[in-house]
Amino acid sequence: MTNNSHRLEIRVRYAEVDRLGQVHSSRYPVYLEMGRTEMLRTTGMNYRDLEAAGCFLVVAKLGITFHEPARYDDLLVLETTVTRATSARIDHKYKVWRGETLLAEAETTLASVSREGQVQRMAESLLKVLGVAFS
Amino acid sequence: MTNNSHRLEIRVRYAEVDRLGQVHSSRYPVYLEMGRTEMLRTTGMNYRDLEAAGCFLVVAKLGITFHEPARYDDLLVLETTVTRATSARIDHKYKVWRGETLLAEAETTLASVSREGQVQRMAESLLKVLGVAFS
Amino acid sequence: MTNNSHRLEIRVRYAEVDRLGQVHSSRYPVYLEMGRTEMLRTTGMNYRDLEAAGCFLVVAKLGITFHEPARYDDLLVLETTVTRATSARIDHKYKVWRGETLLAEAETTLASVSREGQVQRMAESLLKVLGVAFS
Amino acid sequence: MTNNSHRLEIRVRYAEVDRLGQVHSSRYPVYLEMGRTEMLRTTGMNYRDLEAAGCFLVVAKLGITFHEPARYDDLLVLETTVTRATSARIDHKYKVWRGETLLAEAETTLASVSREGQVQRMAESLLKVLGVAFS
Repeated sequence: MTNNSHRLEIRVRYAEVDRLGQVHSSRYPVYLEMGRTEMLRTTGMNYRDLEAAGCFLVVAKLGITFHEPARYDDLLVLETTVTRATSARIDHKYKVWRGETLLAEAETTLASVSREGQVQRMAESLLKVLGVAFS
Repeated sequence: MTNNSHRLEIRVRYAEVDRLGQVHSSRYPVYLEMGRTEMLRTTGMNYRDLEAAGCFLVVAKLGITFHEPARYDDLLVLETTVTRATSARIDHKYKVWRGETLLAEAETTLASVSREGQVQRMAESLLKVLGVAFS
Repeated sequence: MTNNSHRLEIRVRYAEVDRLGQVHSSRYPVYLEMGRTEMLRTTGMNYRDLEAAGCFLVVAKLGITFHEPARYDDLLVLETTVTRATSARIDHKYKVWRGETLLAEAETTLASVSREGQVQRMAESLLKVLGVAFS
Repeated sequence: MTNNSHRLEIRVRYAEVDRLGQVHSSRYPVYLEMGRTEMLRTTGMNYRDLEAAGCFLVVAKLGITFHEPARYDDLLVLETTVTRATSARIDHKYKVWRGETLLAEAETTLASVSREGQVQRMAESLLKVLGVAFS
């Protein structure tokens, strides 16, 4: 794991598991978002504050590959990594682990938009944090 | 739209929209699943019966590209297409429309597994239906 | 069923069912909201327009009794009834059926608030519609 | 707080908040379930193991009163208390706090059932734990 990675423990909730006993695919985008949020928090920033300042990051692209099912009450580790950042987009990669087993891999592209959904340059404060993360 | 496509209307629910007023990315895998379920129903089969017979289809891969946000109370049209089927895997493509506007495109790969999660050949009845759809 | 009741068909989605094969309790508040939304639509009004006009209805109280589980792919009928309305609150009752079987009963109290969450008198247009429903 | 109470911190996720910026009512049953799960874990038991042993607890009744909205990224404290237990039913009470502010109160009744949904006497191990909690 490099400097620009972050690890988050996630306990699988009962309501997140389908009748086959597996975490439903729709739960993963929620997990990925938690990874990004908590990664940002470690830099001293806060996504809630960013939105309050008029800077919104929306998911433009999402890809997930499922290797092994996660199950109820599993304690997962989500590893989140920034792979690329420009003034308008941020790419992340993710790995979801249960112990030594890699359950899923994912990647997202976020776009920076205004409250009205117009593409806009990212907040300076955010760019700075992402820059630091890359050095 | 070709023979092996299916269209489903989906009314966006209040609880599916985030605080930016957009359908959250995590809702799309649920929509895609509805598309597959209803497409199958039109063939006279039923995914519930398939599972009762021990045939499970799990999402092995998922990709979504978001062009424009869907919003609360929008009446969406989800177009679902089978693009490839073997005895162990089915690939689908999807388009999400609001009127003439293409909001999102997606693709999934499903794997056929047993209740215990072992890869298994798909039920004959399902293969037949998919075969017919392709002819 | 009386004048101020409304019936809505809801097909249970795969992602709404837990590993016991039952619709999870957390899905019912979403169903109830759909019932209210569609009931309002039949009066010619639209909850989206109400919110756009600055009138918000938030759940102040919620109660549900579960008699029998709903299951994947069930075609449920949700019966929604307004039981009481003042200028600041609306009470609803709900019954969830699968065929002749009563699966659940619920009731909610909604409060009329501004975008900032302050209690406010309901929109005249809405009061009128509710009044008509009662006459 | 008494002996048979438990406190759990819950960070509100982005996907749990509606377009009014409030945690949607449908998210609370999920929180309540987390409270019960973690409370049980502190006794050395595990709800996953209970289910593996054929003991299922399903929600028979649910009531929630909402005082103040919870918002995105809030760090909530959920207080869970067992208020009554028999061999077939457990009642819980809950309070949801943000700091000193009481946001919501809830109560549930759980019924003990078999995998097939038949009412059954609770597992001895669970009864013992609940009994200890009451002494």
